[in-house]
Amino acid sequence: MEDRIKARYWIETAFPLQEAAESMAGEQSTGTFVRVPGETDELRERHAARVESISEQDSVSRPSLPGAGVPKGLSGSPAYRRAEVVLSWPLSNLGPSLPNVLATVAGNLFELKPFSGLRLLDVNFPPAFLECYQGPQFGVAGTRKLANVYRRAVIGTIIKPSVGLSPEATGELVRSLAESGIDFIKDDELQADGPHCPFADRLRAVMEIINKHADRTGKRVMYAVNITGEMDEMLRRQDQVVAAGGTCVMVSLNSVGLPALARLRRDCRVAIHGHRNGWGIYGRSPAIGMSYVAYQKFWRLAGADHLHVNGLQNKFCEDDESVIASARECLAPMFSAPGRGCEVMPVFSSGQSVRQVPATFGALRSTDLIYACGGGVMAHPDGIAAGVRSLHQAWEAATAGIELVDYGRSHSELLAALRKFAA
Amino acid sequence: MEDRIKARYWIETAFPLQEAAESMAGEQSTGTFVRVPGETDELRERHAARVESISEQDSVSRPSLPGAGVPKGLSGSPAYRRAEVVLSWPLSNLGPSLPNVLATVAGNLFELKPFSGLRLLDVNFPPAFLECYQGPQFGVAGTRKLANVYRRAVIGTIIKPSVGLSPEATGELVRSLAESGIDFIKDDELQADGPHCPFADRLRAVMEIINKHADRTGKRVMYAVNITGEMDEMLRRQDQVVAAGGTCVMVSLNSVGLPALARLRRDCRVAIHGHRNGWGIYGRSPAIGMSYVAYQKFWRLAGADHLHVNGLQNKFCEDDESVIASARECLAPMFSAPGRGCEVMPVFSSGQSVRQVPATFGALRSTDLIYACGGGVMAHPDGIAAGVRSLHQAWEAATAGIELVDYGRSHSELLAALRKFAA
Repeated sequence: MEDRIKARYWIETAFPLQEAAESMAGEQSTGTFVRVPGETDELRERHAARVESISEQDSVSRPSLPGAGVPKGLSGSPAYRRAEVVLSWPLSNLGPSLPNVLATVAGNLFELKPFSGLRLLDVNFPPAFLECYQGPQFGVAGTRKLANVYRRAVIGTIIKPSVGLSPEATGELVRSLAESGIDFIKDDELQADGPHCPFADRLRAVMEIINKHADRTGKRVMYAVNITGEMDEMLRRQDQVVAAGGTCVMVSLNSVGLPALARLRRDCRVAIHGHRNGWGIYGRSPAIGMSYVAYQKFWRLAGADHLHVNGLQNKFCEDDESVIASARECLAPMFSAPGRGCEVMPVFSSGQSVRQVPATFGALRSTDLIYACGGGVMAHPDGIAAGVRSLHQAWEAATAGIELVDYGRSHSELLAALRKFAA
Repeated sequence: MEDRIKARYWIETAFPLQEAAESMAGEQSTGTFVRVPGETDELRERHAARVESISEQDSVSRPSLPGAGVPKGLSGSPAYRRAEVVLSWPLSNLGPSLPNVLATVAGNLFELKPFSGLRLLDVNFPPAFLECYQGPQFGVAGTRKLANVYRRAVIGTIIKPSVGLSPEATGELVRSLAESGIDFIKDDELQADGPHCPFADRLRAVMEIINKHADRTGKRVMYAVNITGEMDEMLRRQDQVVAAGGTCVMVSLNSVGLPALARLRRDCRVAIHGHRNGWGIYGRSPAIGMSYVAYQKFWRLAGADHLHVNGLQNKFCEDDESVIASARECLAPMFSAPGRGCEVMPVFSSGQSVRQVPATFGALRSTDLIYACGGGVMAHPDGIAAGVRSLHQAWEAATAGIELVDYGRSHSELLAALRKFAA
């Protein structure tokens, strides 16, 4: 059986569903707006995208997005039908190329006239992609090994203030964090190589402290240093990170694009922390864009080891169910090949503190995650060390099935955090 | 005066506008959800994003997007106010880096809780970016020189069927097109290096014909060959294009990302044709994403020479006014530096034929554009050569201020095209 790429969509259209689905398939494979001479039946048979299934849902009387067409000759106001549609393409149309899959499954079709809404819900890559893409180098198990953290959540934080600290001030903050027992520290996505905090100087200042701390204690804090930049800058910075003894680099995925991530992955000797800032453009409207399920598959194949999934009761608009679904998806294999499922470490972040720990563990039933708190560590009333301890205590309680308030009676840092970060 | 990056947004919020705008500025610069110890007043003063202006518009009773918060203690159903907001950032927060500007002006803020809608409308780069980015190498004037087309629109077409043709069949089609007097031919965005039409074979087959035609007639057809792929593939393919005598490469912008385009630009010796497939994710919802005005500035600075703007009465959802606004924007300088305005050639495409020519010229009052017709050339009832001639005739008529039907009386190819492609 020939390998095919499959994609599932949510659509909304005033046209008959079969006709609408076929227009998607046509636009994204053999078609143009009129049939052209070279478009033989044999060619269509071999290369046309196929409508695999259509599953009708509800309908609405007003279109979700403006600009959609309605069938000619339709009288009165049309119903806009909603459905899930699965299309498939022969892999031989494009070959196992992530940027070209993106242009195929998430290209022009978002603008097609028959649709008042169209979202990519999922995409399935045939195993041939595993021959061309390396996927995560470290993923869950490798990250645990690099951070030397087993059988519990990786407790992390974010350098705050987001911008404005000098390399030396960043180093001093990292010193406090390392001494507080933190596992993981990430730069803010707003700080990569600003003139007041140049990359090389920040890396040097921070790694000096991390290295000394590791020499003294045996614990090497994982520092996801933001290398987001131009292609050669990112490659050079990765080398600098390795040379400095670092174990992780961070990139803003939407800023760098798939080929840059795949290129970085090829040379990379440390974990790649994938920040999803800008994700709102893809994910926030229910009528356009793509689901996180589809989105994260591209970045996993390209080589991300960690992927942001937001967090419960976050400062953004996403509901908890969606956050947990994203995290589960990161931990689910993409392929059935042994050792090549491309699982990645989900990163919980955005307004996180001790208070979301029980619900996070309750829903995910796993500690395979990075739990990153900015203010949730640094704004603890008794200081950073107490902030880190409070998070360890919260995870101990949650995994043991003990209520945080109960555990807080014998753990003062947790108690103080619960008071400070009450919802 | 310090250099600042400015961005203009459309927002919709149930919160007081000043408070909402300040939350955007805070999230995208110094802030976290609680104030942290290092966040001194001096640091805020120097690095905080600034709310430059707020211009209130209408308000609505229902939020455009789900998930937005409402002010605490608000009784009844809130009004969702709309406004244009201008924010600015000191360049020294991030330095002149396109991927990091993207993370700053189009990052997390799309997901912020106070907003039921948020769109980036425009962004202004300080001149320092011209020191780091090359911008278009060819743009309008260089493309005209490469294609040897002056004082009229560049008449183009797209290889159709989009997928399924072998390299040899593609070459044969190009032969017919070249003999028909076409100026410009582009690959479809669905075909880059598919196993049935490998890049190297297609390039060889097509360039052999283009070179022979150029030797015989002096006219070198510009072929935008789709090099979209991984970073090293794109660089290698650009070299192959140059070696084969080509004058243009095409990339799917959203598939490759800004750093890959900037990297390609550095080595590139031919024009870069930027295809915007996937643009619907950014542009289609009025409540989220970004305007084409903002979008195209990033790609121009990174080095695109041609940018797709859709076309009038297209097969997509965009209205004509928006298409013309996009094309005008491509032709407007981004910087006042002499010879460094980064103007690019707008590409009209999508269901285009002779019938949209008068309105296109009428609205743009310029022939600085590529007018690309797939079916509009190939499905001409009298063949490809007649299709190309009909387009030349349509542009002659439009620029001379003659109605197409009148001109068609003495120009049979135009007449036949008007009959075939009637709206």
